[in-house]
Amino acid sequence: MSTWFTEKQTENFGITAKIKRSLHTEKTDFQQLDMLETEEWGNMLVLDDMVMTTQKDEFVYHEMVAHVPLFTHPNPKNVLVVGGGDGGVIREVLKHPEVEKATLVEIDGKVIEYSKEYLPEIAGKLEDSRVEVKVADGFMHIAESEDDYDVIMVDSTEPVGPAVNLFSKGFYEGIAKALKSDGIFVAQTDNPWFKADLIRQVYSDVKETFPITRVYTANIPTYPSGLWTFTIGSKQYDPLEVSEERFHAIEAKYYTKELHKAAFALPKFVRDLTE
Amino acid sequence: MSTWFTEKQTENFGITAKIKRSLHTEKTDFQQLDMLETEEWGNMLVLDDMVMTTQKDEFVYHEMVAHVPLFTHPNPKNVLVVGGGDGGVIREVLKHPEVEKATLVEIDGKVIEYSKEYLPEIAGKLEDSRVEVKVADGFMHIAESEDDYDVIMVDSTEPVGPAVNLFSKGFYEGIAKALKSDGIFVAQTDNPWFKADLIRQVYSDVKETFPITRVYTANIPTYPSGLWTFTIGSKQYDPLEVSEERFHAIEAKYYTKELHKAAFALPKFVRDLTE
Repeated sequence: MSTWFTEKQTENFGITAKIKRSLHTEKTDFQQLDMLETEEWGNMLVLDDMVMTTQKDEFVYHEMVAHVPLFTHPNPKNVLVVGGGDGGVIREVLKHPEVEKATLVEIDGKVIEYSKEYLPEIAGKLEDSRVEVKVADGFMHIAESEDDYDVIMVDSTEPVGPAVNLFSKGFYEGIAKALKSDGIFVAQTDNPWFKADLIRQVYSDVKETFPITRVYTANIPTYPSGLWTFTIGSKQYDPLEVSEERFHAIEAKYYTKELHKAAFALPKFVRDLTE
Repeated sequence: MSTWFTEKQTENFGITAKIKRSLHTEKTDFQQLDMLETEEWGNMLVLDDMVMTTQKDEFVYHEMVAHVPLFTHPNPKNVLVVGGGDGGVIREVLKHPEVEKATLVEIDGKVIEYSKEYLPEIAGKLEDSRVEVKVADGFMHIAESEDDYDVIMVDSTEPVGPAVNLFSKGFYEGIAKALKSDGIFVAQTDNPWFKADLIRQVYSDVKETFPITRVYTANIPTYPSGLWTFTIGSKQYDPLEVSEERFHAIEAKYYTKELHKAAFALPKFVRDLTE
């Protein structure tokens, strides 16, 4: 008899993956945390029954969150990651030599703990000397920051549970304050097939706060619909206007400098959400 | 009690969709055909337990198969669709006023019959006066054609069952012969997450036959991994060199002229399959 994990991505649709065994299961102070060993995707981190990352496809999300804003900013020295306790975004951030300090603010210390144990190739760089890890509320951290960061990345769960505040207009205003005068931020903003209203709302809210607002996509097979969106708010630098000289070689499996720009060419029905 | 249809996209991973009812089930001369009414995707055509198309997301595949080669060719008058019995590609082909004749060669007449009944907004244009429908073997039709077509589109099932021949080098050589001297063809070539070897092999075979070979992608949520590839072989026209004037307005929900080019910017791990 085999066991399968099924994520209902909507009431009526989902993905299902064969699991070898459960590595850890725990109700933390913030959410249900499950670490599963799957046949197809390697180890898989699941929070509140939603796939957060897997060993096989994690590179897409982490590369696309990190490299698009970091190559857009000409000199990103001080970077903040809100959420992202698995450490994958931090790992990608550290590939940029300009980055002097990367701060991770994750509300749930258990995510960090079990990612280090079961996703070491993702979380391993959390020990790097350029990294500061804070187990704290990202919303509060943003509220207390001012003119501090060159780039902020919001690597949150879906807007249920602990991440609800991270999809509010007040949060984006806080991010604008926490950024330097030429700062840029990116947030994961779910998928256009099942969450079109969310994307439209976030785009509208960010646009009221930042002079440059843009949406890009990436294919993440274990996320709902396989098509994920990311929304950028930028005070000065346009991700579509990065000069050829700005790009430098980077070890990546998904991101390329051609894809950096192409990812902003949205399918018509997604572009419509931004108009 | 509710019923769910599960497609195992690999041995260890799949999608699952809640179904209202089965509309039709039949073992045809070529394959198992199921038409399901689903909650999330509307009516869904399933062949040999693989999702072929659904009312909700069909536009992506059909638009991207048709419009990329048709806008690449400066004057596509005579078009052949191999497979595609649901009629979706034909519907998109007919949006191009240059097209004088569109021939559909589908091996399984039952696919046409039940698509007309249960997917009328997809199959409805099969009755158009510019369309000729042949229930015949696409491989044989290609073998018997010479210097006939401006554009050929291979809208096949996966390379199991009746479509095995449609992924062979001999078939691509036949297509080259069936095309005019400036012809272009496109084939659906599965996904890079689970079928990397197939993409690499097709690319290599097409490249040995056509001077211009290119791969592009689109997001199709009900197909394995959500990331689908299409491989183009072209005798003369490069899909990346389409002039701005060639594009004309077209009713579409996915395709845009910006996406026409951006879709060829491949994720690094996909690009690697073409090198």
